[in-house]
Amino acid sequence: MTQPFADRLADAVHEKASCLVVGLDPVLERLPAAVLEGLDDERDPRRRAALAIARFDAAVLEAVAPYACAVKPQLAFYERWGPPGLEAYEQAVAAAHDRGLLVIADAKRGDIGSTAEAYARAFLTPEAPGATADAMTVNPLLGKDSLSPFLDAVRSAGAGLFVLVRTSNPSASEIQDLVADGHPIHEHLAGHVDHWGRDFVGESGFSSVGAVVGATAASRLERLRKKMPRAWLLLPGVGAQGATPEDVAAAFDGRGLGAVVNASRSVLYAFGDRERTDWTDAVGDAARSLRDDLRRVMETARRGSGSSRSPVP
Amino acid sequence: MTQPFADRLADAVHEKASCLVVGLDPVLERLPAAVLEGLDDERDPRRRAALAIARFDAAVLEAVAPYACAVKPQLAFYERWGPPGLEAYEQAVAAAHDRGLLVIADAKRGDIGSTAEAYARAFLTPEAPGATADAMTVNPLLGKDSLSPFLDAVRSAGAGLFVLVRTSNPSASEIQDLVADGHPIHEHLAGHVDHWGRDFVGESGFSSVGAVVGATAASRLERLRKKMPRAWLLLPGVGAQGATPEDVAAAFDGRGLGAVVNASRSVLYAFGDRERTDWTDAVGDAARSLRDDLRRVMETARRGSGSSRSPVP
Repeated sequence: MTQPFADRLADAVHEKASCLVVGLDPVLERLPAAVLEGLDDERDPRRRAALAIARFDAAVLEAVAPYACAVKPQLAFYERWGPPGLEAYEQAVAAAHDRGLLVIADAKRGDIGSTAEAYARAFLTPEAPGATADAMTVNPLLGKDSLSPFLDAVRSAGAGLFVLVRTSNPSASEIQDLVADGHPIHEHLAGHVDHWGRDFVGESGFSSVGAVVGATAASRLERLRKKMPRAWLLLPGVGAQGATPEDVAAAFDGRGLGAVVNASRSVLYAFGDRERTDWTDAVGDAARSLRDDLRRVMETARRGSGSSRSPVP
Repeated sequence: MTQPFADRLADAVHEKASCLVVGLDPVLERLPAAVLEGLDDERDPRRRAALAIARFDAAVLEAVAPYACAVKPQLAFYERWGPPGLEAYEQAVAAAHDRGLLVIADAKRGDIGSTAEAYARAFLTPEAPGATADAMTVNPLLGKDSLSPFLDAVRSAGAGLFVLVRTSNPSASEIQDLVADGHPIHEHLAGHVDHWGRDFVGESGFSSVGAVVGATAASRLERLRKKMPRAWLLLPGVGAQGATPEDVAAAFDGRGLGAVVNASRSVLYAFGDRERTDWTDAVGDAARSLRDDLRRVMETARRGSGSSRSPVP
């Protein structure tokens, strides 16, 4: 039996002394010129894009591996290129694992039971050679039975889930903040996540059923942290979406654990000028710098609580 | 400029005198033995599965084409087999178009803006050779800005959307029926769909921004029909999920238009015994029989209203 995702993530955060997750959002038009070199012979535009993306991902993974605990490939940017794009996704998963990075497939799937089962197999428990992510994001709009097949993968394969609870985009409020029975929808979702995750709490004290909570409102984050005390939180919104490392402080426990922070574009495209030949240095520097900022936040959380358990190295 | 999806769908329903959408949910373990014949030489299990699925889909499409206005491939059952599976999806789209069937990609995607744009390109507006579905299903949990890129595809490419409003699965009620400001969440979603769709009403009187509404509760369907008078409704739940053709009567207008009804497993696997060599006959018979039942419902809607506009042939 594989170690539960919750504990693998806790170990990775400890070992790296980093809660940074680098999002892989490869956009062809933004890739450095260097990764496109020599691909003119490839006449199939989708295959050419996929080859460039695979080169980009490989170089990014090498650059960020010392500073990140996990990576989060966003499926849309691979599916955009059809089957060759999906091959590039699988290569990214393999390359990340080769570098000792956990992989969170950002797929946000959610569908009725039999369909959700096929998605669980696609991303978490492939029965044929393929890419096995360590965890994936899921959309809870269809309720518990749409998540059951994913929970089965948590049980049988030690996989992890991050359930959308409150996203970081501007119009997230339209549905997620509607108030029912005195509480916003995102708190109802948080209650479900806490409940669904109870059977999957590992030795780290955290559950393999986590939640996606936008880092763009600190007070809301604090409330959701309390509603889901055992959930690993995946916090997008830092960097390009405007949140600062300090905005996420409320998500950490006294050990500096409990949350991982995703940054995508602010790291991936830190090189600015696409012609830069030393573009990977800029990517690595951006990851290290953000890791350092986040490490200070984790340290503060640890000191603030006075806990002496499992200190962050 | 392509004719808007709303009008293409109205034309297809008229021409076929059918509101039947056949869902393509190809599950390897349920495929007839005939489509697996001679594939033992293919050593890659994913490629073998994809080849069998492509054969199955091609035969199903031939069998149901006279009776269905559209087909709805469910992406999960293709993604389960990785890149070869996605190739089978693209073959299904091409084969459906060759047979004059509209294609609704059942992807239920929903993500922040830049990601949603990549998904819109993946399914509706590929910039490289690929499969272009006529419409797709989307998940509205992230609100309007997550749907904007899909609405752009409606505007620029005449594509169609079906937004999840009230799904047909047992636990749909957990989130979708929570009551906020005196109305269940699914009615809030319906209000958004009506609003988002206003700019995209075609000559048929219907909008290319439609909604997915489970056929499993007739009174709810009637209420949602009133909230979204211009939306094409995609109604799952008939057949394997327990709803009858009569349950969907409230969805049609006086012309017998306004809704399409999806059946997947009850048609695809109508042959029962996997060893049957005449399995396609059973699939075709099931589609024709359901088409006939639904045609009676459409006729009743037309007679009931006393309308003389655009009668169903």
